[in-house]
Amino acid sequence: MKILVDMDGVLADFDDGFLKTWQNLHADKPFIPIDQRTTFYVVDQYPEELKDLIRQTIAAPNFFGSLPPLPGSVEALTGMRAMGHDVYICTSAISAFRSCVVEKFEWVEAHLGTDWVKSLIFAKDRTMLRGDVLIDDRPAYEGGFVPSWEHVIFDRPYNREVVGKRRLTWDDWKAVLFGGNE
Amino acid sequence: MKILVDMDGVLADFDDGFLKTWQNLHADKPFIPIDQRTTFYVVDQYPEELKDLIRQTIAAPNFFGSLPPLPGSVEALTGMRAMGHDVYICTSAISAFRSCVVEKFEWVEAHLGTDWVKSLIFAKDRTMLRGDVLIDDRPAYEGGFVPSWEHVIFDRPYNREVVGKRRLTWDDWKAVLFGGNE
Repeated sequence: MKILVDMDGVLADFDDGFLKTWQNLHADKPFIPIDQRTTFYVVDQYPEELKDLIRQTIAAPNFFGSLPPLPGSVEALTGMRAMGHDVYICTSAISAFRSCVVEKFEWVEAHLGTDWVKSLIFAKDRTMLRGDVLIDDRPAYEGGFVPSWEHVIFDRPYNREVVGKRRLTWDDWKAVLFGGNE
Repeated sequence: MKILVDMDGVLADFDDGFLKTWQNLHADKPFIPIDQRTTFYVVDQYPEELKDLIRQTIAAPNFFGSLPPLPGSVEALTGMRAMGHDVYICTSAISAFRSCVVEKFEWVEAHLGTDWVKSLIFAKDRTMLRGDVLIDDRPAYEGGFVPSWEHVIFDRPYNREVVGKRRLTWDDWKAVLFGGNE
């Protein structure tokens, strides 16, 4: 199987990393706990007067590099590869690309290893990538192509309203992808 | 049409940039003029004792960022987009990724403009990308998929032995891709 895995919010814990950085830098500001997150983009759930500060926080050096892995994500990816599947890590650059692209390569190298770096793909339009499944926390995808992959939604508090798609966590990925028989 | 365009040696003039940097830094060392280049990778055509120095030259900061555009390449890409085609720029990181990934984003921003940055794709395995054509100077492609695109070879001195593929330059791209009627 060709398995595409999204990076932010699936492999790297964007929400947890954001919350810790935000509370650390701005202890006086309100914050939204992860279980109360309802929007795909963090910035969309905060009041207008904090949005610029949030964008700056995300675009700051060392933000992406210091995101922790989601529990079980690294083990799942190495497990998929050990089962013989081709695994690609999919991401895209934020518009402030200088602060994120090297850190994303470094993140993959640090948490998965050097031989995974060549499996990292930067592509804004994910519909142009081929694969059997795309594991992604984004509720829906639009792009230049009708997707060739099945979008398997990675379960997060902010995408619980999505129905009609298979839903996966790093606890049940084998059962969801392979019927629990492997 | 969905047109994939390779970056190094097609959009950015890797050979010209390498030769100028090499001659500038190592005027005492031999060099191979562009019209005598016979291998896809520059390093393969130089003697063993110079290979490490060549790899260091390519991995040095500012190497990728200072590559000149191939004459006509920028005009061709903006022309394709003006005709209504979807154009994606395809590249991959060298193993010394820290010295190249940001510079490749900056190159696209500087020579094509900010709105082209989101069309830049990093993918080592180009067979996983969908498109109608891939314009690329690499003689042949292998990867995890049977390609969905037609490989149109971008004419360079080192790929002249390739036969059986349509061949394109930035002078005749309209005729090659569209039959000369546009």
